[in-house]
Amino acid sequence: MPIQKPSLPKGTRDFGPVQMAKRNFILDTIKETFKLFGFQQLETPTMENLSTLTGKYGDEGDQLLFKVLNSGDFLKNVEKEDLGLGANKILPKVAEKGLRYDLTVPFARYVVMNRNEITFPFKRFQIQPVWRADRPQKGRYREFYQCDADVVGTDSLVCELEILLMIKRVFAHLGISDYSIKINNRKILTGIAEVIGESGREGELCVAIDKLDKIGWTKVQEELQQRNFSQDAIEKLSPVIELAEGNSSKFEVLKSYLVDSEVGMAGIEELEEVFDLLKQYGENESHVDFDVVLARGLSYYTGAIFEVKVNNVSIGSVSGGGRYDNLTGVFGLEGVSGVGFSFGVDRIYDVMEELNLFPNQQADNTKVLITYFDEEGFKYGLGLLGKLRVAGISSELYPESAKIKKQFTYADKKQIPFVIVLGDNEIKEGKVALKNLETGNQEMMDIATAIELLK
Amino acid sequence: MPIQKPSLPKGTRDFGPVQMAKRNFILDTIKETFKLFGFQQLETPTMENLSTLTGKYGDEGDQLLFKVLNSGDFLKNVEKEDLGLGANKILPKVAEKGLRYDLTVPFARYVVMNRNEITFPFKRFQIQPVWRADRPQKGRYREFYQCDADVVGTDSLVCELEILLMIKRVFAHLGISDYSIKINNRKILTGIAEVIGESGREGELCVAIDKLDKIGWTKVQEELQQRNFSQDAIEKLSPVIELAEGNSSKFEVLKSYLVDSEVGMAGIEELEEVFDLLKQYGENESHVDFDVVLARGLSYYTGAIFEVKVNNVSIGSVSGGGRYDNLTGVFGLEGVSGVGFSFGVDRIYDVMEELNLFPNQQADNTKVLITYFDEEGFKYGLGLLGKLRVAGISSELYPESAKIKKQFTYADKKQIPFVIVLGDNEIKEGKVALKNLETGNQEMMDIATAIELLK
Repeated sequence: MPIQKPSLPKGTRDFGPVQMAKRNFILDTIKETFKLFGFQQLETPTMENLSTLTGKYGDEGDQLLFKVLNSGDFLKNVEKEDLGLGANKILPKVAEKGLRYDLTVPFARYVVMNRNEITFPFKRFQIQPVWRADRPQKGRYREFYQCDADVVGTDSLVCELEILLMIKRVFAHLGISDYSIKINNRKILTGIAEVIGESGREGELCVAIDKLDKIGWTKVQEELQQRNFSQDAIEKLSPVIELAEGNSSKFEVLKSYLVDSEVGMAGIEELEEVFDLLKQYGENESHVDFDVVLARGLSYYTGAIFEVKVNNVSIGSVSGGGRYDNLTGVFGLEGVSGVGFSFGVDRIYDVMEELNLFPNQQADNTKVLITYFDEEGFKYGLGLLGKLRVAGISSELYPESAKIKKQFTYADKKQIPFVIVLGDNEIKEGKVALKNLETGNQEMMDIATAIELLK
Repeated sequence: MPIQKPSLPKGTRDFGPVQMAKRNFILDTIKETFKLFGFQQLETPTMENLSTLTGKYGDEGDQLLFKVLNSGDFLKNVEKEDLGLGANKILPKVAEKGLRYDLTVPFARYVVMNRNEITFPFKRFQIQPVWRADRPQKGRYREFYQCDADVVGTDSLVCELEILLMIKRVFAHLGISDYSIKINNRKILTGIAEVIGESGREGELCVAIDKLDKIGWTKVQEELQQRNFSQDAIEKLSPVIELAEGNSSKFEVLKSYLVDSEVGMAGIEELEEVFDLLKQYGENESHVDFDVVLARGLSYYTGAIFEVKVNNVSIGSVSGGGRYDNLTGVFGLEGVSGVGFSFGVDRIYDVMEELNLFPNQQADNTKVLITYFDEEGFKYGLGLLGKLRVAGISSELYPESAKIKKQFTYADKKQIPFVIVLGDNEIKEGKVALKNLETGNQEMMDIATAIELLK
C-alpha cells in the first residue's frame, strides 16, 4: 500500500487530551446541573432518515444536510437519463439517510415514536454532535456539539424559571461572572406591533430594532421607513426604545404602554410571573435582564425567549432558547408544547479560553508519576502503584527503564503535578520521596502519609 | 407539509433515559478506571477522508464503510458514460468522506499528524460510536460504541499488566464476577508451529484449534489433515491439546515443549513476566487464564493477545485486544508499537441485563419530587426546591397544579425514590412530610433533617 500523508476533512477537528479535559470540564458542569434539576439523558442516532430531516430547516438547511450514500450498489435505481436532471433529483435515489443537523428534530421524532411510554412532563437533555455542510471558518465547524435541555408537555412557567436557574448555576460553576441572560416574551413583541398599529409585523419590527445597539435609533427609523412602517407607528415606538435600565421600571412603563393589547399584557404577566418565581425560589435577579427587543428566530417561539451574552469578549451570544407551541406537529402529534434551551459548548470554550478561566490542574489528570533509578526501584514502585490506585489516586509508573530526567520530562509534559522518586534510601527505609513539581519541594515520607497528601 | 410517520434507519437505536442511565453506569466505570491508570481521552471526528479509511479493513470492510455524499452538486464530476462503470468506479467522484469504522485507524492517523506534540509513551482512551453497513441482526447494530485504551511508544510489559488490572477493576465495579481473561502470546503460537515442523502456518493452525471446544480433538485433527498438516505435525500437537488446567502447570509443560524454538521461548518469557508483574503489583491471578490456543485476528498481533469471556451467558466474548508492532506504518510513521484493548459496551450491557446486574436505583436519577395540594403548597415547595438543590440533591417540584395522585404517578414512572408531600400542617409548622416510595414509610420532619436524609 502506498504511504499516505493523512489529513482531516475540512471543518472537522480532533480533540486531544488537553482540549478534552477542558471540554469535559464544561460538559460535566452542564450535565451535573441538568441532573440536579431532574433532566434525563437521551441519545439519538447519528444518522436519521432524510424524510425525517428534510424540510425542517428551510431550503438552506436542506442544502447543508450531510447525506449518506446508500450502501451496496447505490446506483441501482439511477438511469442514464436521470443524470441530466441534476443532483437534487437524483439524491433520493442514491441516499436515504443524512447526518443529524440539530438535536430538536430528533427529539421531536423520539417523542412522537415513544409517546405512549414517555412520562409527561418530559424533561430531557441531550449532548451530541451535529453536522452542517457550512463553509468552514474561524469558530464555525462542520461537526460541533449541541447541548440541549427541553421540557415538553406542560406550559408551567416553572420551566422558564428552571432555565434561568440552570444557566446561573452553570456559569457560576464555570467561573464566568460577567454575563447577562436576556429574557423576553414573544407576546410582548406581538403586543408592541399591535399598539403601534402594525399588527402581525413583529417579525420585521424586530429585525430592525435588533440593530439598535449597532446603528442607533436614527438609522433604525430609516430602516423602518424603508420597510413601509408608518411615521405614526415609528413615533409610537419611542417609549420602547427609550426604556430606562432596570427590570421593574421596564415592567412599569410597558404595563401602561401595552394596556390596550390583550396579548401584550399576557406576555408581561408571564414574564413578571417568572421573576416572581425566581424570588420565591430564593434566587436574586442578578444577571437576568428583561430585553424588550430580544427576538431570536422569532418564528419558532410563542412565549419566553432567552439569550445569554458574555460581556467583554469577542464572541457574544453563547446560548439561547425559548418556548414553542408545536414541537411535534410535523410528525403528526399535535399539542405538545414545551420550552428549551441550548448551551453553545464550542463558544463557551472559546470564551473561557479568552478569559483564561480554565483551572490550571485538570481534575481528570494523573496525579502522580512514580519514577525510579533501577530494577529495584521499578519493583518497589510497582507495589506502590497498586496501593495508590486502591486509594483512588490516578497514578502511573514510568513503564520502562529510562534516565530520571526523561521520566521527569514525561511528568512535566503530561502536566502531572506530583512525582514520587524512588532511590536506594527510600527503598531501604520503605518510604517514598514525594516531589511537588510546581513548588519544587521534595520530602521523604511514609507511604501512608504520601497517600493522604495526594488524596 | 404532509404529516409523516417517523422511523429510525435500520440498525440504529435511540437510547432513552432508562437505557442511558444503564449505559452511563458502564461507561462511567470504564472512564474512571482509564483515568485512574493515567489514560487520557481523545475524540476524533465522525467523518474521515475516505483515503484514510479505505484499504484498512480488507475488501469486506471497504464495502461496509458508510460514505458521505460530497456537499453541493455531488454529480459535477460524473459524466453520462461513467454510469456504466458501476458504483465502485463512480464512488470517488461523488464521495470523499466516510464515517468512522473503528477507533484504531483514526487513532493511528492522530498519532501521525501530532507525532511532534505527543508525549510518548502515549496512553490514550477513546469512547465514541462507529458505523458499519452490516446487515442488522440481534445484537449487531449499524451504529455502536467502541471503548478503546491503547499505549503506544513503549514495549514495556507494564502495559500488558495494566490491561489485566483495568479489566479486573472494571468487572469488579460492574459486579460481573464469573468471567475469565484469556491471555496468550503470538510468539508462543509461532513457536508451536515451528516445533511441529509447520513454521509460518500458525494462522491456519489456530483457525482449526480454535474449534477444539466446539467440535473436539478428533474433528480438529480431521480439519488439520484437510489443510495438509502432516500426520507427524498433528501428533506433535498432542501435548498442547492435552494441557492440564492451571497457569503454572501450562508454563512448565510448554517450557520443555518449546525449548527448541527461540521465538516460542521468548513468548513464554514475556507471558511469565506479565504474571510476575501482576504478583509484584499486589494483585492475584484470579480470572486470568493462559489460553495457548487463543488467536483473535492473529494477523494484527505480535505479542500479547487478550480476550474476556463472561461465563454462563449467551454472549460470550465481551472484549479483547493485544500488542501490535506497527500501528502507524500505513500513514508513513514506522516503529510505533503498542498494545491496546477494547471494551464491548453493547455486549457488556446485554450481559448485565441477562445477569440482572444493573443497580435498581440509578445514581443519575432525581432523588426527590416535591408534591403539593394547592397554590400555597406550590409556593412553599418552590423555596424548598432551592434549598435541596443547593445541598446537591437532584430534585423536582411538580410543575403544575394537579391531583396528588397524578404527581405520585409521575414520581413512580420516573423511578424517583422519595416524595415530599406538602399539606397545610407541613406548611404551618415549616416542616415537610418525606415519603419513601419503596417502603411506603412517611414521616413529618424538619427541612434540615430531610436534607440530611436525602443526601
